[in-house]
Amino acid sequence: MNHSNKIFCLLFTAILVSGAAFADPLPSWNNTGTKSSIIEFVNAVTDPDLSSFVPVADRIAVFDNDGTLWGEQPVYFQFLFALDRLQEMARDNPDIITSDVLRAAAAGDMGAVVSAGEAGLLEVVNVSHSSLSVDEFQTLVSAWMETATHPVTGRSYADMTYQPMQELLRYLRDEDFTTYIVSGGGVHFMRAFAEKLYGIPPNQVIGSAGESRYEVIDGVPTVMKDPGIAFIDDRAGKPVAIDSKIGKRPIFAAGNSDGDFEMLEWSTSGEGPCFAMIVHHTDADREYAYDRGSSIGGLERGLDEADARDWLIVDMAEDWNRIWSDGE
Amino acid sequence: MNHSNKIFCLLFTAILVSGAAFADPLPSWNNTGTKSSIIEFVNAVTDPDLSSFVPVADRIAVFDNDGTLWGEQPVYFQFLFALDRLQEMARDNPDIITSDVLRAAAAGDMGAVVSAGEAGLLEVVNVSHSSLSVDEFQTLVSAWMETATHPVTGRSYADMTYQPMQELLRYLRDEDFTTYIVSGGGVHFMRAFAEKLYGIPPNQVIGSAGESRYEVIDGVPTVMKDPGIAFIDDRAGKPVAIDSKIGKRPIFAAGNSDGDFEMLEWSTSGEGPCFAMIVHHTDADREYAYDRGSSIGGLERGLDEADARDWLIVDMAEDWNRIWSDGE
Repeated sequence: MNHSNKIFCLLFTAILVSGAAFADPLPSWNNTGTKSSIIEFVNAVTDPDLSSFVPVADRIAVFDNDGTLWGEQPVYFQFLFALDRLQEMARDNPDIITSDVLRAAAAGDMGAVVSAGEAGLLEVVNVSHSSLSVDEFQTLVSAWMETATHPVTGRSYADMTYQPMQELLRYLRDEDFTTYIVSGGGVHFMRAFAEKLYGIPPNQVIGSAGESRYEVIDGVPTVMKDPGIAFIDDRAGKPVAIDSKIGKRPIFAAGNSDGDFEMLEWSTSGEGPCFAMIVHHTDADREYAYDRGSSIGGLERGLDEADARDWLIVDMAEDWNRIWSDGE
Repeated sequence: MNHSNKIFCLLFTAILVSGAAFADPLPSWNNTGTKSSIIEFVNAVTDPDLSSFVPVADRIAVFDNDGTLWGEQPVYFQFLFALDRLQEMARDNPDIITSDVLRAAAAGDMGAVVSAGEAGLLEVVNVSHSSLSVDEFQTLVSAWMETATHPVTGRSYADMTYQPMQELLRYLRDEDFTTYIVSGGGVHFMRAFAEKLYGIPPNQVIGSAGESRYEVIDGVPTVMKDPGIAFIDDRAGKPVAIDSKIGKRPIFAAGNSDGDFEMLEWSTSGEGPCFAMIVHHTDADREYAYDRGSSIGGLERGLDEADARDWLIVDMAEDWNRIWSDGE
């Protein structure tokens, strides 16, 4: 290599390096204090020259799903799947309709089911998510995700993930964080799309779960989904699930409702650097605006205590220049 | 670089590469068919030119712990910890002794506890493993591991892992497998040493679990270990735990007792290549010899069906030239 070639190469390398250093990892985030807080934290824990450096093995980030990574209005998307599935099941076998709530669900009367409260939602999920194998269930969910559309936006559910949060997941992984979903959604439901939608593999998806059972059926080893709720991954259940499945305290946590409060509290109570953020739904034009008193994604204590706890409130209307992953 | 230097470098590189290719990854395994079966399987799934190739993300290997990675005679090591802990607790607070089994345990009468069967073992584990935080518990286990010695061999428990299995864990990880423990042992107990002893991080340790609960105690967010058994990770519980925590079917499974049967069955029922092995305790001189009828590590169905299922039986006396990780 001659001298001028060598200089060109060095220059070119310098441009590449500085280009990488200055590329914006979060282009859908406006240049507000919110965005710079996130980037400052990531820099603080990944720079080996700083005392705030955190080894790769401890860079654990946990994300709620509903309302944090994708939408959750007018009702959790998993519940819309449950309604579709229950209607299909009732067509094949009307005997499964054993209560008023199930009758309303099979008739597609979402309002009547929602008004039956959490018990009503759980009954519909329980019946529609059991008495089949995990493999069969996940095949159904994948097929539903391919064709179903949201009742208000008309978008596919895959297009209703939040683009800024997709960028945040990628950014953290680029900086050698391990990203987990820790959500009230069903673990088998979320795993059917988490890798494709978020790049998060099954072992990093933590959620609520029904009872399940291993059985050899007609010679085929099978994990069956049985009726009954085994675990609700919400509120104080989230730190318990994190301990049970990760076994280390996260240093980064993102949620959007008071169902995430304990997860954020747990993740910010370790000895080293930590970061918690709450996605605040403030954008009635582009998405929804809700917090106090909302039956889906209610947020009160988080708003009241975020400042004192040094948790970041993300204002969707102010901080995000784009909402959905499908381009708008 | 001049010409002769370049030739030297090329030669040196060739020696390094061929040295790596021919280095024995399993030096404590005798050159029997057992060893070559393992190596042939690993080559088959890691050679991208073969149709049997398995992508890195699906190279999941699961290992039982007691009797597979370390000893389990004359009784599970966790139970020996439980006895030590119960005696200490009873000294501080005699009121915890509320049954004959607990009285026997506190007196160090292992025989009396063992004769009370599984219910007796569970009662002792339950009382000795609860009413403290996960952090406190794991600190106690770590301290115990530093000082306790085995009642028969006099070795530390860390020295009673099986050297051939340590080599197998490393070999699989070198070939980009993810190695999990899936054991009847308590998840918090095993996590206290799994990373140090086996290089397996907490999120890859799956085990039995007591009830646990998140609570802010005197301002400190805490995960508490409560009384009560939440999950027994044995027999048909193992595939359920694998589904719940890994979410993919393993392609490599190692166990030693009929408590591992369903895990091996599940791991060998997928569509692609798979491998299952049973560590058969045949060496009364260097370790123990037991299988049918043993109350600890009983093995009957596995022996009866291994051939027909194409599972490998590892004969410790024949296949291993060394047993313990401490050098003998």
